[in-house]
Amino acid sequence: MKIQQITKEVSIKRSVDSGTEEQRKTVQQIIRTVREQGDQALFDYTKQFDQVELTSLKVTQEEIDQAYENMKQEHIDIIKEAAANIRKFHEKQLRETWLYADQHGSVLGQKMTPLDSVGVYVPGGTAAYPSSVLMNVMPAKVAGVKRIAMVSPPGKTTSLPDGVLVAANEAGVKEIWKVGGSQAVAALAYGTETIRPVDKIVGPGNIYVALAKREVFGDIDIDMIAGPSEITILADETAIPRELAADLLSQAEHDMRASSVLVTTSQNIAEQTAIEVERQLADLPRYEIAKQSIENYGAIYVADNLFQALDVVNQLAPEHLEVMTKNPFEIVKHIRHAGAIFLGRYSSEPVGDYFAGPNHVLPTNGTARFSSPLSVDDFMKKSSIIAYSEEALQRNYEKIAAFARLEGLEAHARAVEARFK
Amino acid sequence: MKIQQITKEVSIKRSVDSGTEEQRKTVQQIIRTVREQGDQALFDYTKQFDQVELTSLKVTQEEIDQAYENMKQEHIDIIKEAAANIRKFHEKQLRETWLYADQHGSVLGQKMTPLDSVGVYVPGGTAAYPSSVLMNVMPAKVAGVKRIAMVSPPGKTTSLPDGVLVAANEAGVKEIWKVGGSQAVAALAYGTETIRPVDKIVGPGNIYVALAKREVFGDIDIDMIAGPSEITILADETAIPRELAADLLSQAEHDMRASSVLVTTSQNIAEQTAIEVERQLADLPRYEIAKQSIENYGAIYVADNLFQALDVVNQLAPEHLEVMTKNPFEIVKHIRHAGAIFLGRYSSEPVGDYFAGPNHVLPTNGTARFSSPLSVDDFMKKSSIIAYSEEALQRNYEKIAAFARLEGLEAHARAVEARFK
Repeated sequence: MKIQQITKEVSIKRSVDSGTEEQRKTVQQIIRTVREQGDQALFDYTKQFDQVELTSLKVTQEEIDQAYENMKQEHIDIIKEAAANIRKFHEKQLRETWLYADQHGSVLGQKMTPLDSVGVYVPGGTAAYPSSVLMNVMPAKVAGVKRIAMVSPPGKTTSLPDGVLVAANEAGVKEIWKVGGSQAVAALAYGTETIRPVDKIVGPGNIYVALAKREVFGDIDIDMIAGPSEITILADETAIPRELAADLLSQAEHDMRASSVLVTTSQNIAEQTAIEVERQLADLPRYEIAKQSIENYGAIYVADNLFQALDVVNQLAPEHLEVMTKNPFEIVKHIRHAGAIFLGRYSSEPVGDYFAGPNHVLPTNGTARFSSPLSVDDFMKKSSIIAYSEEALQRNYEKIAAFARLEGLEAHARAVEARFK
Repeated sequence: MKIQQITKEVSIKRSVDSGTEEQRKTVQQIIRTVREQGDQALFDYTKQFDQVELTSLKVTQEEIDQAYENMKQEHIDIIKEAAANIRKFHEKQLRETWLYADQHGSVLGQKMTPLDSVGVYVPGGTAAYPSSVLMNVMPAKVAGVKRIAMVSPPGKTTSLPDGVLVAANEAGVKEIWKVGGSQAVAALAYGTETIRPVDKIVGPGNIYVALAKREVFGDIDIDMIAGPSEITILADETAIPRELAADLLSQAEHDMRASSVLVTTSQNIAEQTAIEVERQLADLPRYEIAKQSIENYGAIYVADNLFQALDVVNQLAPEHLEVMTKNPFEIVKHIRHAGAIFLGRYSSEPVGDYFAGPNHVLPTNGTARFSSPLSVDDFMKKSSIIAYSEEALQRNYEKIAAFARLEGLEAHARAVEARFK
């Protein structure tokens, strides 16, 4: 890894894959076909794209039972414990309807309501992560969403991976469909004979899934389109290079376009970590991916002091930020932009990826400047409540009418006046 | 207004104006030019589109002082009082950073941070509403956003409307630029010599503004793209037709594509209200607009009972919902989808448009199924906090490593193991 002094501005922007014109047209065509032909289109596309011939789209109870039998009990128990931790953390996010008595007997407030229905997309193949199922489903469940419909492309066995089914069941999903790609997004957005439409779709997917989500956005809601993953570690001279390197590599193994950055106040830590990265990289199973990631999007910055280092961190606005300094809690107030903040030596990033409880769906590519981790908020909506009293309107209707007329809206003025004239 | 019995499904979807290919290309060209030429492009486009030749983009203190002198004191006082009410309501939305001690000495939580900077777009001409300035700026101000940059196209006087300047000043805006259209959005998103870039742009605008917001979305955040306004009134036999009609018309006068719907359990109320609408419509200054709106997007539905009526309301998911029934508070729990809910006879919709405190920027066109009023939440972001203790990691690292290996991510497993091996 190259060690660099900090120059003026630091940023690791990777262009977002927004698809080719041809891909967009393909996706639009698939959506149209699903809207016209319903289930038949889903069977056809699944045969075409997944090379699987299905007779039914729905995952059965038998398949779920089979997944439990196939899985080691140890793994089932870990998924259960992770699910419980995630539930606990997200329950703290729950907000209730509130009201207050305003002047003259009026009541104002905000009603919190869960979305009616949510679709969760789960990728197939090597990206079929049980942890991702838990992280996407659990906030919806905690929010109180009544209907959660999961979709995922079937493998050659005509079923879904055991881990995905077990995680879905532990998270409380009752409705799982064997369909992936743009066609799954179209089915969730507009409905077919068997799949009813949902109000929002969340979950990661390939470019066709991302493009389909963009297409249906507006008719229904979607979550953010995630970019490649990234970590920034802020370390002083007390950090341990072997551990820093291991954490940087845990990010790098995700994706050739993942980014791993160390910002340190110590030239020695910088040098030792660079050596450790090379050493540990050598025998990683995903060597080729991690190597490309480190070479193209890895960096070590040496800062003169913690404030300069923090400035770099805030410029990067990383998805994951580890703070490996003597007093990590004192650093928090200076961090303006980060998806998740890991404090201290024992908060290695995988702790958050799998187990601690906070969500691992986080804002990437600098969007932590304005975006947040997936949360219960994403599955609830608010409605304002206004119950004006007679006295309040009596005292204020002339002002309201005057304001309306100032804006040239006479009927607005007359509406409030109608109560008293 | 036509009175209809309720058939199976009710929905008033209006197609969203997503612009022509030519408009999109124009907007892309304008954005490119602003990025290349900076301020000069802003001066040039302002001359071209607004027919105004400026020597400086910035609104001066003298112009703000002049606006106060031009305005009636009565109007200034009303704006001040509305601003205070809006501030009070939005302060109730403020959420603080929270932490809790998890098992074995770990600490988990969520850090709340305001966005660094926000741009507020204010349309020109007849749509330059002071109320809209208050509603868009105040939640950002309450959230703690340090920098709020307002943009608006200059009128022939080379300045902005008095009401806009007074409202901006009362809301606490310190930075106002005389520039509108796509070029203003581009300047806010990417910066020029004088206008620094922001993290998010909010506020309504014409199709060029909407298209520009869509273009820059991803690089920065934007608010929702609002459709035409709408009201649904749920009324039983206790409601007063003259008042219902006045409220329906206050919505209809906004826009030819605005929608005003009455859902009532009383045939008599339906008939009387239809007559009242015709009568009151006749002498409205915005007669032509309101008439078109009522004819094309107005409807009166008669329901057999309150539950059927509520079902219609939830299908419509209206932006504004008035509940004009005997016991409006008892209805609230049955309302699943509405932007703002107005309860009782004295909660005429203009009360919320101008004065009560809740935001008037609300989800339109059925998106209340999944969207919320503009709020303080829209100007803050969350960061997860994970401070795992040595004991917690010691107890759990083998499980975390096993989960990582289940997903084929060896470097993740090694990262947590590195702390103990």
